[in-house]
Amino acid sequence: MSKGKLLYAQSGGVTAVINTTAAAVISTARQHGIKVYAARNGVIGALREDLIDTAKESASAIRGLAHTPGGAFGSCRFKLKSLDTDRAHYQRLIEVLRAHDIRYLLYNGGNDSADTSLKISQVSRELGYELACIGVPKTVDNDLAVTDCCPGFGSVAKYTATSVLEASLDVASMAESSTKVFVMEVMGRHAGWIAASAGLAQRGEDDPPHIILFPEIAFDQAKFLAKVKATVAKVGWCTVVVSEGLHHADGRFVAEAGSKDAFGHSQLGGVGPAIAALVKDELKMKVHWAVPDYLQRSARHLASQTDHDHAWAVGEQAVHYALAGKHGVMPVIRRTSDAPYRWKIEAAPLTKVANAEKKMPKNYLRRDGYGITQACRRYLEPLIRGEAAPPYGKDGLPSYVKLKNLPVPKKLPAYSL
Amino acid sequence: MSKGKLLYAQSGGVTAVINTTAAAVISTARQHGIKVYAARNGVIGALREDLIDTAKESASAIRGLAHTPGGAFGSCRFKLKSLDTDRAHYQRLIEVLRAHDIRYLLYNGGNDSADTSLKISQVSRELGYELACIGVPKTVDNDLAVTDCCPGFGSVAKYTATSVLEASLDVASMAESSTKVFVMEVMGRHAGWIAASAGLAQRGEDDPPHIILFPEIAFDQAKFLAKVKATVAKVGWCTVVVSEGLHHADGRFVAEAGSKDAFGHSQLGGVGPAIAALVKDELKMKVHWAVPDYLQRSARHLASQTDHDHAWAVGEQAVHYALAGKHGVMPVIRRTSDAPYRWKIEAAPLTKVANAEKKMPKNYLRRDGYGITQACRRYLEPLIRGEAAPPYGKDGLPSYVKLKNLPVPKKLPAYSL
Repeated sequence: MSKGKLLYAQSGGVTAVINTTAAAVISTARQHGIKVYAARNGVIGALREDLIDTAKESASAIRGLAHTPGGAFGSCRFKLKSLDTDRAHYQRLIEVLRAHDIRYLLYNGGNDSADTSLKISQVSRELGYELACIGVPKTVDNDLAVTDCCPGFGSVAKYTATSVLEASLDVASMAESSTKVFVMEVMGRHAGWIAASAGLAQRGEDDPPHIILFPEIAFDQAKFLAKVKATVAKVGWCTVVVSEGLHHADGRFVAEAGSKDAFGHSQLGGVGPAIAALVKDELKMKVHWAVPDYLQRSARHLASQTDHDHAWAVGEQAVHYALAGKHGVMPVIRRTSDAPYRWKIEAAPLTKVANAEKKMPKNYLRRDGYGITQACRRYLEPLIRGEAAPPYGKDGLPSYVKLKNLPVPKKLPAYSL
Repeated sequence: MSKGKLLYAQSGGVTAVINTTAAAVISTARQHGIKVYAARNGVIGALREDLIDTAKESASAIRGLAHTPGGAFGSCRFKLKSLDTDRAHYQRLIEVLRAHDIRYLLYNGGNDSADTSLKISQVSRELGYELACIGVPKTVDNDLAVTDCCPGFGSVAKYTATSVLEASLDVASMAESSTKVFVMEVMGRHAGWIAASAGLAQRGEDDPPHIILFPEIAFDQAKFLAKVKATVAKVGWCTVVVSEGLHHADGRFVAEAGSKDAFGHSQLGGVGPAIAALVKDELKMKVHWAVPDYLQRSARHLASQTDHDHAWAVGEQAVHYALAGKHGVMPVIRRTSDAPYRWKIEAAPLTKVANAEKKMPKNYLRRDGYGITQACRRYLEPLIRGEAAPPYGKDGLPSYVKLKNLPVPKKLPAYSL
């Protein structure tokens, strides 16, 4: 195989540490004399031949990239469909790679990306184009198969547990004469990993969060209200964490509001405010609610050191795999010990990762359905350990970098998506 | 004056650093051999004779208190009305103080608290009870008169600017194929200080936040939508920060929804989701919104060092004033220089602080009404400087303390509020 270039692409929702992986990829490739292009806005840029020349970025910019949240080259929500449906796209992709002598494709994303990486790998073989296609794991949802956890999750977990702890101290101090119930909505439409991470803040039975509403368990309104009431009676106040994916027994999302707001416009989701309104109306208690939304997955200022280390390691290893001629694999995290926490990176075949989803084990959910078990805590805790804070400027804000993102001259005719 | 005890009470909404002030009060009083009681849940506890003996807390607990958010002794929303209306309450208060030989009252709160402190001071003189009544400033709203800024504000400002910066990096990376507009709601019902602090994240014209909606300026829907549209056309995406106090020209809050949600319950406020729905329906753009609510004022993990230093200094000085026989005063922050930032603590008469409100100067708002001016930046920036991070435990969470809060034996008959 010729020693060609490496193309790095980000895909799907970004995380607080996806750029840490990007920085690791670029640094490692530089050490091996491999030129790295990045696809602008993920696979969309790859198809449009909109490539970024990372060689134009200074070493200090790449160091800064490692502690900057968001996706520095742009990511996208664009799913390549089956080979039959989207064959033209796959062929165009290989054409672009060939035009720029790109021999290594590192695709940094979640479930869909593993699947896309696999298909690109197949098409390249069919077309006789030598390409090492490596999937690189990333997702705050922590739902990738095979890997013990996903880079990006540990930091949102640390943010979530810390935020619940802090806001609950606020609620506790005001409960005598003000807010009695605090509701915080967290991400995770299909799996309750982020919701579960809030449980790390709970030390004793009466400590917050008192109730976690998981997407794995159908919402039981009467049982929930009874639990809130009992908690306020016993503790004086109550913190509730609810997953955006909470649903009714018939499968409808609780967040599917369909109501109108002050402007007469359709109300946007928000299971947090819906649960808060329920408590207020049914229990006549003063309620506050929070929806951190993107704040939770971009909070690089509160990144976990473990998560940072994972994110760096998968980027570094992905380059090593590519250079070693591996293809159709993904560097995954294998835990070898809980206490002390030990882990290593292994190559997993993309066929095993793609189209599978890691669910929360049943024994991670407490029997009453409102909290996490000791087994879950043992799994989650190492993932939020350590503080990988960014440097701060004299202006009091984190010093995040902005790359130049200079384009690589195009060689092919335009292609419309 | 006999060398009696000191009573410390927290009042109103708590902040990330009100306990820093509490720790300063207790440490300083201990150095002078003065015993400190704390009122449980603020003035409610003082009236109920529900007092906490802080002498039972270890030195290390008090050190930990300095970096723990929330109000460690409990705060309250309970406003003592005029002397005529609530004379019985004021008299009871003096009775409680007298029963425990409390000769120094430090009341840590916002506008209402300054007013209450003043009245207590008057009643004590009328009743011939020697009492040094000192107000201690605190409020995330930054609306206290006389003082240059309020302890608690700098940290929420740092949290707000950092969060807007981080979430915007997320939005920027996804905008090509996903969310185009991000709306973040911040606190501040009457003054736009917190909203203004978001402006610190903006470096250049095209940097976020692109639009800040202040409570000082009536909401102009058509102009706002045009600005969002123009921003997305130019930048590719748009970050909007909106104050919970945003109102229409006729004075109605934009957050006054009055609509029904999925449960058929009245929807709780939320100007953030309302603005998001407006953009989605009128401009047909994908929108996300965040409402950090209590997270913003309890985020001790992101406290500003300046804010921490102010909070400590007002607590320390309040004790010095009390011991020096001052009464009816509040230690306030006076800025003596912007660059380098220099400040000192001065005693201001409570008569000047009570019942006044510090508004945003007109020249702090940009002419188009959607951002802050250089003058505003010069004022705000020093307040978010420096990182006063708490220590973290091996579990990856901030090490916040829980005090014992042991009660002082009661000496008086019960009193119902």
